Amino acid sequence: MRGLFITLEGPEGGGKSTNREYLAERLRALGHEVVLTREPGGTQLAEKIRALLLAEHDEPMAVDAELLLMFAARAQHINQLIVPALTAGRLVLCDRFTDATYAYQGGGRGIDPQRIAVLEAFVQGALRPDLTLLFDLPVEAGMARARQRGALDRFEQEHQDFFEAVRHSYLQRAAAEPQRFRVLDAGQRLGQVQQQLEPVLQEILERVHAH
Amino acid sequence: MRGLFITLEGPEGGGKSTNREYLAERLRALGHEVVLTREPGGTQLAEKIRALLLAEHDEPMAVDAELLLMFAARAQHINQLIVPALTAGRLVLCDRFTDATYAYQGGGRGIDPQRIAVLEAFVQGALRPDLTLLFDLPVEAGMARARQRGALDRFEQEHQDFFEAVRHSYLQRAAAEPQRFRVLDAGQRLGQVQQQLEPVLQEILERVHAH
Repeated sequence: MRGLFITLEGPEGGGKSTNREYLAERLRALGHEVVLTREPGGTQLAEKIRALLLAEHDEPMAVDAELLLMFAARAQHINQLIVPALTAGRLVLCDRFTDATYAYQGGGRGIDPQRIAVLEAFVQGALRPDLTLLFDLPVEAGMARARQRGALDRFEQEHQDFFEAVRHSYLQRAAAEPQRFRVLDAGQRLGQVQQQLEPVLQEILERVHAH
Repeated sequence: MRGLFITLEGPEGGGKSTNREYLAERLRALGHEVVLTREPGGTQLAEKIRALLLAEHDEPMAVDAELLLMFAARAQHINQLIVPALTAGRLVLCDRFTDATYAYQGGGRGIDPQRIAVLEAFVQGALRPDLTLLFDLPVEAGMARARQRGALDRFEQEHQDFFEAVRHSYLQRAAAEPQRFRVLDAGQRLGQVQQQLEPVLQEILERVHAH
């Protein structure tokens, strides 16, 4: 596929959305076709699955049900949006992807990563992000920023040890795949994070031109 | 687990619901605790997933998304209802289960049965129905009965060759596992189908007492 698949990962409050917009603006200003999307979600049906995932229900959600809903939304998103966009040569900037499943359902909920890998292979085949930006920041700082935004969803209501495990998983994955991950210090002020994005932007442009 | 897990399979219009009620009445009259349930669905959250599966959407549903939604609902159903009921020694009569996934998503949609087997193992572990009643009838007859009921859902709108493939898959599975399947001629009138259920009922009672 001719496009570039770039994912943005990290906790709520890490500035993924703001920085995704910033990257998109910069890339569009240079004449590139950029598609902004997110997971879970990204298509109409996948957003309906997202709503089920984030809502409170009268019964506890089985961890396997949560995991399978994530991958159902992902299958729809890949099929309807990601693969068509990449095939058309576009730059896809996606807010969270399968690394988030390893971090939240694996690290946070304690699902064996090998079980997640089964579904990753099932749904994605060989599709993996070309580049993943991890917006890392201390758990307390992310939770404080998320709380300021108002009502918390089913995941945001989890406790500190859940988010510590999520952060640990993310950093572990970044360390294991340095060729794919770029770790950004998202605890800094926005202007400073954007300075950190400068070399990433150059790298994206080089990769696009190399295609 | 001490209970008995009995599934009823077959097309719409095959009388699964009516005969499930009939079996439940007979078993309850003999003092057995019976739980009636269905797939996709069976719990509040699983029924919400069912609604997504049966509804029309503005975008086509990817076949893998459909399959994963089925198993997400199943994971929730098993975890919240089926396993607790069987552990408590109840008779669970379930309208459709994984054989339907092999028939509809495998036979009907053409998904490789080995891919379905991956998810079956993932979600169910060793859980399989103790007994499966297949209400078999010619495709035309089932379609005619389903049409009489009014508005058709996303599956019921499929065409004859889809339902021929579904029926073929069901019969193939029944032939491959004769120890688990009992095939009933659902093209007969209700009273005659109930006569066919008499030996099945005896078999259920023998198995319950053998536990």
